[in-house]
Amino acid sequence: MEFDVQLKESIKEVENILEEFLPKGKDIPKIIIEAMEYSLMNGGKRLRPILLIEAAKCVEGDKNKVLPLACAIEMIHTYSLIHDDLPAMDDDDYRRGKLTNHKVFGEGMSVLAGDALLNYAFEIMLTHIPENYKEMMNYLKAVKEIAYAAGIQGMIGGQVKDLEYKEGVMDLETLQYIHIHKTGALIKASLRAGAIASGATKEQLKVLTVFGEKIGLAFQIVDDILDVIGDQKKLGKAIGSDQKNHKITYPSVYGLEKSQQMIEKLLQEALNHLKLFGSKGQFLGELGKFICKREY
Amino acid sequence: MEFDVQLKESIKEVENILEEFLPKGKDIPKIIIEAMEYSLMNGGKRLRPILLIEAAKCVEGDKNKVLPLACAIEMIHTYSLIHDDLPAMDDDDYRRGKLTNHKVFGEGMSVLAGDALLNYAFEIMLTHIPENYKEMMNYLKAVKEIAYAAGIQGMIGGQVKDLEYKEGVMDLETLQYIHIHKTGALIKASLRAGAIASGATKEQLKVLTVFGEKIGLAFQIVDDILDVIGDQKKLGKAIGSDQKNHKITYPSVYGLEKSQQMIEKLLQEALNHLKLFGSKGQFLGELGKFICKREY
Repeated sequence: MEFDVQLKESIKEVENILEEFLPKGKDIPKIIIEAMEYSLMNGGKRLRPILLIEAAKCVEGDKNKVLPLACAIEMIHTYSLIHDDLPAMDDDDYRRGKLTNHKVFGEGMSVLAGDALLNYAFEIMLTHIPENYKEMMNYLKAVKEIAYAAGIQGMIGGQVKDLEYKEGVMDLETLQYIHIHKTGALIKASLRAGAIASGATKEQLKVLTVFGEKIGLAFQIVDDILDVIGDQKKLGKAIGSDQKNHKITYPSVYGLEKSQQMIEKLLQEALNHLKLFGSKGQFLGELGKFICKREY
Repeated sequence: MEFDVQLKESIKEVENILEEFLPKGKDIPKIIIEAMEYSLMNGGKRLRPILLIEAAKCVEGDKNKVLPLACAIEMIHTYSLIHDDLPAMDDDDYRRGKLTNHKVFGEGMSVLAGDALLNYAFEIMLTHIPENYKEMMNYLKAVKEIAYAAGIQGMIGGQVKDLEYKEGVMDLETLQYIHIHKTGALIKASLRAGAIASGATKEQLKVLTVFGEKIGLAFQIVDDILDVIGDQKKLGKAIGSDQKNHKITYPSVYGLEKSQQMIEKLLQEALNHLKLFGSKGQFLGELGKFICKREY
């Protein structure tokens, strides 16, 4: 199957499951479900859940058993975007071509919508613990992996540093810390959680971890580049914000050409690692290429 | 031992454990640990963790095994206060006599500090799953109980309704929804989680559930009353905010005297239920009285 078709199908599949997992219940105020759904179902590439599912497939795991983890990680990603867009943080009005959550529901409600998605991600993961003992132990390890990656030693750590240096001059070390933590941690955790929950061997897990690290960093360099030369229409948001905010980025430090070369190098290294999985790793490799060559 | 002394000791014990559980690590930005600690270690009655521990004791559980749950529930409570105090929510400058989190660390950082505490609560719970199979199953049920109580069908649901009706006229049904969910859910869950993790029987769990419901509601009516006749110094915050915000409260609907009687009735019913536990429920009963007669 062509990659584009396969990606579309994977996205559709993830979105169906997200819809299914969305909270229902008379006792829940309607407005919060609307606010959660507004951001969760607002397009997006669904990279993290797809990476998680593909990692499970690479190690011959059962896709259906990792779906709650895949949904949870997309909810965590979404909550972080909602809070990131708040006036007190990045103060963004648009996300994927639509008004940001707080522009539609108000600031207070979007704080709560973010909180709700984070909490709900854990509810979902806790509600779907497998009964089989060995599977349960692997699954719980995967949940812990996600929790750590989302927390202060992972994603939130990156957001904190990003916020701390919002107004100041950022050195390269700080930039790398932010890249590795703010985006990289959750991308790596997607791959690791999918593999761990499926009982991956040490070698398999290591390969997917390295793949995740390389692709995670490449993802972020692409982001930096798109902020310089991206197409606003395709991106669904304004470009040039890094320069406006005097942010150090890969293009500003290394130039565009060198940054592109770095991405290419990271991609090749990532792909080399995947060879362990043979044809089972093919779609994951294509995903890696897609991440490195994306225009949005 | 006198109740006051025993309560002080319990608070001290909880605070020691909270200190112990606080995140450490070179790779974590210092500022976020400071912001988390600022609100988490800012006094407070520590009611939820103490209720959780006492519920475990009532059913002859091992206190040490529920400490991670007790800490987690206090972290969840604290995160909800940080986000509640934000300008976009209640816009409060003081909490327990000290500046609120966003007044010290800025709005963006206090959004992240709240997120961090919620996420960290789950990290702690997931890091301390017992190894014994039966204990593990009970413990995981308790974690789920806490997750649900903290979410949109519990605490966040209450916050959402509270925010929705911030500017409007609230009817009694909505007021009760907010009381039951915003504060009641987590108080009830404290008792239930402590009991469930300790392998409580159905009867024991039911008693503690009813006790939690009655005390949770009483807690909130006391809050309403203190906002009318409380001592600002003891409370550490300004009173009269409900009236200023045209909020319907128990005193505004039933009058002060009737509201006091309702508290007394709830307390008596709650205490009656505790009889099942004999002397093991004594401190919990005293705690119930303390909650109903507190001046702060």
